[in-house]
Amino acid sequence: MLHAVIMAGGRGTRFWPASRETRPKQFLAITGEKSLLQQTVDRILPLIPPEHIIVVTGEVCREETCRHLPELPAENIIAEPLGRNTAPCIGLAALFIRKKNPRGIMVVLPADHAVTNEDAFRGVITRAAAAAAAEPSLVTIGIRPSLPETGFGYIERGEPAALSTDADIYRVAAFREKPDAETARSFLEKGTFYWNSGIFVWTIPVIMDAIAGNLPDLYGELLALEPTLGTDGEAAAIRAAYERISPVSIDYGVMEKTPNVLIVTGDFGWNDLGSWDALAELAPKDERGNVLRGTVVAVDTNNALVLGRGKLIALVGVEDIVVVEQDDAILVLKRGKSQDVRKVVDHLEHNDLKRFL
Amino acid sequence: MLHAVIMAGGRGTRFWPASRETRPKQFLAITGEKSLLQQTVDRILPLIPPEHIIVVTGEVCREETCRHLPELPAENIIAEPLGRNTAPCIGLAALFIRKKNPRGIMVVLPADHAVTNEDAFRGVITRAAAAAAAEPSLVTIGIRPSLPETGFGYIERGEPAALSTDADIYRVAAFREKPDAETARSFLEKGTFYWNSGIFVWTIPVIMDAIAGNLPDLYGELLALEPTLGTDGEAAAIRAAYERISPVSIDYGVMEKTPNVLIVTGDFGWNDLGSWDALAELAPKDERGNVLRGTVVAVDTNNALVLGRGKLIALVGVEDIVVVEQDDAILVLKRGKSQDVRKVVDHLEHNDLKRFL
Repeated sequence: MLHAVIMAGGRGTRFWPASRETRPKQFLAITGEKSLLQQTVDRILPLIPPEHIIVVTGEVCREETCRHLPELPAENIIAEPLGRNTAPCIGLAALFIRKKNPRGIMVVLPADHAVTNEDAFRGVITRAAAAAAAEPSLVTIGIRPSLPETGFGYIERGEPAALSTDADIYRVAAFREKPDAETARSFLEKGTFYWNSGIFVWTIPVIMDAIAGNLPDLYGELLALEPTLGTDGEAAAIRAAYERISPVSIDYGVMEKTPNVLIVTGDFGWNDLGSWDALAELAPKDERGNVLRGTVVAVDTNNALVLGRGKLIALVGVEDIVVVEQDDAILVLKRGKSQDVRKVVDHLEHNDLKRFL
Repeated sequence: MLHAVIMAGGRGTRFWPASRETRPKQFLAITGEKSLLQQTVDRILPLIPPEHIIVVTGEVCREETCRHLPELPAENIIAEPLGRNTAPCIGLAALFIRKKNPRGIMVVLPADHAVTNEDAFRGVITRAAAAAAAEPSLVTIGIRPSLPETGFGYIERGEPAALSTDADIYRVAAFREKPDAETARSFLEKGTFYWNSGIFVWTIPVIMDAIAGNLPDLYGELLALEPTLGTDGEAAAIRAAYERISPVSIDYGVMEKTPNVLIVTGDFGWNDLGSWDALAELAPKDERGNVLRGTVVAVDTNNALVLGRGKLIALVGVEDIVVVEQDDAILVLKRGKSQDVRKVVDHLEHNDLKRFL
């Protein structure tokens, strides 16, 4: 039985001013009519029924998450009291699934990524689930790279896993952090490197064992939490546990330290939408390379991404620019500089401008 | 006796979105706390009392003009029913002055220019008035050029006028339209060319004679209008006359065709503020060349002019850019392209976006 865990714990820094503390990226409809979160659920619904989809989010985002996902049972929206990175989030979700289905298969999905080919996506998830069922392993999804992208982490494949269910699955040789441009080019040339999508598939026993073996403190907290789930003491117990738990990512805490990691490779128009630049690259453009939403007048303007929201936005003679209007703020960003948007957020935090966070 | 005529009939196209049909440039406080119109009046007040200052503006702007200038008698704000360029405007104002003071001296001032050295400005006006009183002539004010500016018209000086009152005044050899860059450089090298400030000084008899000689149709309309001034029929008579009058500038219609034109030269930090670029060049800058008004966060940003109005405006990695926020519109303009702002205004006129004009 498949279960989905949608990780929706992000902070709203990179997509400022659209994303905010109480409106992180997954709530934004930046690639279409629906929010990224809604799209993430819609994308997996043909494979997994709503009652088997769990969303883990921050406490301040719980209500908004429920509003975005009316088709999910409210008890499937789990609120973390504090952000502790992905390993505790996945461990907590695994506990909830284990209550219902101790041997269930868990598909972990980030809430705020883009996928353009949903059929291909579900095909890859199905193959990964079959692999996770066939061999006790942590299955990652690697995206066949089309560019020497420096904004993503990479996974190097090793030997074929030679599973009876699927010949085209590999053991993972190594996880690699975001590379510099030269390294990224060499990855692309070698042909054995894949973008790390942050999508994982495994059975409950396998992930719990992996946490037990690699993050014993976290495992202890989870075991202690388990009997409180579904009781009146649940929220207080989770809060107390989270105050003790150290933040650690599933990649660093578990995946990189576990031998039985497999990679299923695919190509389904994935993008982690890490920045305004990523969105600008991804969005469908007009003949001048412009993406213009809202009431926009563009004179002699090329490669602009404009997201208007009420005001008329007029551009004259500009190139390679991102303009984002929100009710209380406007961002004007040079394309290629979107990593520096966090400097604006830092400035707001430290200069009595917290109301814009 | 000196009289000032402030010409405030401009349309709000070049400073869109700050300037609008009902809020042309002279109403904007783009160089300080006060509007350009208020600054124009303040600048001449030490020389000319309020009751001798006339403002000619469009009918839709009459009330706003009165609001900006409470120190002026309301009857000194003259409304033109239609824009007919500067010659009819000046002729109409001359009629009003002639009623009170048939031999008065008239100082014609555009309402929307910038002057940084007001003492020098008044010194030049005083010298020009003395010249206009000493010899029956049309006196222009030429600005000693500091740059090969292509955005201004030029005046070439001729022989010294050799007036008993002021040795440093010249006859005008020629008026020149806005030059191309090469011509502008040659003007600067020659040292006998001056920026045409659009400021004129003459006596009422001299300007009326010059209109009579060069624009006889206009002169006929003015003579017919004269007896209606101050009567109940004034407004209707002006409207009827303006519907017949052809638009013509004082430069083309009179100045360029009259032999007795003098030039008083000066340097008083004048700028006609013809565009956002002109304002960006003129405004005092910080160490990165930025002019930032409003709530602005600038990261890695150079040579930006930002006029905020309510929203936080964040800039990241941009250069040579103008950002102007208004209640209903935002302009993002590359510096050097501000002549193209009128293309935005054209687009608004022809695409059902007239509410933004």
